[in-house]
Amino acid sequence: MPAPVAESVLDAFAAIVGPSHALRDADATAVYATDPRGLYSGRTPVVLRPGSTAEVARILKLATETGTPIVPQGGNTGLVGGQLPDGSGGEIVLSLGRLDRIREIDLKSGTVTAEAGVVLQRLREAADREGRIFPLALGSQGSCQIGGNLAANAGGANVLAYGNARDLCLGLEVVLPTGEVLDDLRKLRKDNTGYDLKNLFVGAEGTLGVITAAVLRLFPAPKGRETAWFGLATPDDALALFEIATAAAGGALTAFELIQHRAVDFALRHIPGNRLPLEGPQPWYVLMEISSGRSADDARGLAEEIATAGFERGLVADGTLAGSLAQTDAFWRLRESLVAAQKPEGASIKHDIAVPVADLPRFLSEADRAVEAVCPGARVVCFGHMGDGNLHYNAAQPPGWDEDAFLALYPTMNRAVHDVVRALSGSISAEHGIGRMKRAELLETEPPVAIAMMRRLKATFDPAGIMNPGKLI
Amino acid sequence: MPAPVAESVLDAFAAIVGPSHALRDADATAVYATDPRGLYSGRTPVVLRPGSTAEVARILKLATETGTPIVPQGGNTGLVGGQLPDGSGGEIVLSLGRLDRIREIDLKSGTVTAEAGVVLQRLREAADREGRIFPLALGSQGSCQIGGNLAANAGGANVLAYGNARDLCLGLEVVLPTGEVLDDLRKLRKDNTGYDLKNLFVGAEGTLGVITAAVLRLFPAPKGRETAWFGLATPDDALALFEIATAAAGGALTAFELIQHRAVDFALRHIPGNRLPLEGPQPWYVLMEISSGRSADDARGLAEEIATAGFERGLVADGTLAGSLAQTDAFWRLRESLVAAQKPEGASIKHDIAVPVADLPRFLSEADRAVEAVCPGARVVCFGHMGDGNLHYNAAQPPGWDEDAFLALYPTMNRAVHDVVRALSGSISAEHGIGRMKRAELLETEPPVAIAMMRRLKATFDPAGIMNPGKLI
Repeated sequence: MPAPVAESVLDAFAAIVGPSHALRDADATAVYATDPRGLYSGRTPVVLRPGSTAEVARILKLATETGTPIVPQGGNTGLVGGQLPDGSGGEIVLSLGRLDRIREIDLKSGTVTAEAGVVLQRLREAADREGRIFPLALGSQGSCQIGGNLAANAGGANVLAYGNARDLCLGLEVVLPTGEVLDDLRKLRKDNTGYDLKNLFVGAEGTLGVITAAVLRLFPAPKGRETAWFGLATPDDALALFEIATAAAGGALTAFELIQHRAVDFALRHIPGNRLPLEGPQPWYVLMEISSGRSADDARGLAEEIATAGFERGLVADGTLAGSLAQTDAFWRLRESLVAAQKPEGASIKHDIAVPVADLPRFLSEADRAVEAVCPGARVVCFGHMGDGNLHYNAAQPPGWDEDAFLALYPTMNRAVHDVVRALSGSISAEHGIGRMKRAELLETEPPVAIAMMRRLKATFDPAGIMNPGKLI
Repeated sequence: MPAPVAESVLDAFAAIVGPSHALRDADATAVYATDPRGLYSGRTPVVLRPGSTAEVARILKLATETGTPIVPQGGNTGLVGGQLPDGSGGEIVLSLGRLDRIREIDLKSGTVTAEAGVVLQRLREAADREGRIFPLALGSQGSCQIGGNLAANAGGANVLAYGNARDLCLGLEVVLPTGEVLDDLRKLRKDNTGYDLKNLFVGAEGTLGVITAAVLRLFPAPKGRETAWFGLATPDDALALFEIATAAAGGALTAFELIQHRAVDFALRHIPGNRLPLEGPQPWYVLMEISSGRSADDARGLAEEIATAGFERGLVADGTLAGSLAQTDAFWRLRESLVAAQKPEGASIKHDIAVPVADLPRFLSEADRAVEAVCPGARVVCFGHMGDGNLHYNAAQPPGWDEDAFLALYPTMNRAVHDVVRALSGSISAEHGIGRMKRAELLETEPPVAIAMMRRLKATFDPAGIMNPGKLI
């Protein structure tokens, strides 16, 4: 646990950003030291809000010189505690929110150059205004920031067609722990000049350096979108429908979400305004989105073709296309409300897993058995991005149980579900990252060769150990 | 320069693969020590042809113990000398060609797991047989191998829609210099468990370890393809047409090649069977390919829409759609013959550059001036992947010059052209890599921060310096 930071050192840090951007009041710093879900709560003696890359560089240089741990933070929306200081009061939060310039939109090159603190929603809207899209879409997009998205290699529902944050990033500006600046803001699709330094920092959760700006890819805005809600009997049927959809739509298949009925049931009961798009409940649902570069008719035609094939092959029990934009919004609102709808049902033990797409049905049956073995009566709540093999596979407490008694099973339950994941060569952190939450498990269960390499990377590029200690590795 | 390898050590290496797979005869080893273009010629005391990952591991372990340099080699098609031993006779060639199993095709997950020595063409055909495509397409695909493609982060004409080798790779099996095996053969689109180790090795040209197998992405086979050949007055017109094509076709735009008339002229004069697809010559040409997931009619409709818009806006002076598969093949044969067609015109100084797409016209005018300044009368021959901002920008000798006199200008010409590239924040090696050819320039001209990081990566993961010394870094 780090020692308290000497007052004189705090003053020196504060002087770099100026007093009005160095928050030291306990009330002001508290919001930067706690996550919105209330899972993690720490302390920090100062929150530094630099206004330029040069200020970030001076901060990191001083941190290395003084051995002061730095915790970079974007919109503070991370789900694994990667953006939060520990409880020692010896870690300084570096908030990137003031680096919020969109430096350039280059339509001919199909790129936007944005600083770390640009809020995702703002970037998406800036692209929209130019007739382009920036396809990264997250539930937290109203507050999460580009720097954090890249540090966490964010995913979401559109990875299927456009890739994750890593795939959307062409170049980076990064401040190293020494205070040196790696300027690699190139707008290039092809660049084989040496080792891939960019991808060292994307997904590194701020443990190797601080991303201060990025060149990101823009795409043509689709000319038509169609959304469909299907009811199905089994995950196997959903997988077969996914094959049909992929073959029919290819890159126009921009979302293929798998949702278990219980998740929808919770959302219908607990979130006002939701309604089931079908005649009656089905065991499983698929929310499918088609985005056509041609026309609205083309999108509708493709969606109908997939729906028809699904019905004819007996895969789809019920289904409907969104007849309007309002209906489309309602489908997605229902999907997005699944997370919040779990809370009224009590405590929940969560997993963010990926397995090969072909193994999703097997994962579901084996994980269900594992959950039942750990806690008979626990209720699986499951939804996610089937096209990426990525599910949010959660277990809600049995009705009537004490929340704490159920949460005491967290490590045992995690282990049991993750054992199924590992047996299928899957990932225990598909899109949320490692942070503080999964670090111990990562170190314990990843192949020792991989862990040793990660430790060597960390020691090589952050020898003083000042960058976001206790996270990821 | 490495010392000769002791006979007893050579025997120990040979014993790992067995005598029939350790080539020591000078005639047999010579083909592994020279590149097909004859630019590089080295020597090796033995060519090891391991038959398993375990044998590769034993070889690298022994190499580290004995300090013996190892040069990994795939199909020996690299253009920058990255796959060749130096002239000392102290470097051992490790040929991966016997690791040629396609371990698995998983259609539901959309993946193929292949060993390093699988020839690209064979992998493409295996995908075709399953109704899928593996989109990496290279002139050398009949002999280049997957391991080399990944080590070089190969590009080609289809990067525009499908990405480069890096983007197509989901997982790797790598033997580290210690002989440890990093088994990361996961079939996952989303995996945020720690640092991105995969991309350390993709594009590292065998300087950090040896890729022995990979999980690669497959895509649905297009249901229709249309190819068009356009004649245009200027690169600016081509750029405007590219914008139209991107907006109209999006991900269905699978190739957009820019070709200068002189390149075509050489190909018409020197390569039998070629003919110009248009009525008469134009200063510039675009070879465009549309791949539709819908139908042949859809592909044709999109291509016609783009052509019509190009004509109406006065961007396209002449153009034709391929009326048949034979015509399509003829277009691509003409495109592929541009490389060979330069040779009969004498010596050529070559560049494999990328700049932001928007800056391509500016690059061309400034680079043309730079070439003329270095060698008045030199003839620019230029073609490449406009959609990626990647051009093969070559200078042919003035007619009648002595070849060696012209080639003496190689460093000066490279520097002049690359200075233009650097001023536009471009890349001096877009898709061919660094190898031996561009190492000195890389070290001299990349930002010192980046070079220092690359050196630290090399020292961290190959402390004994046995992996492909003298290449890349």
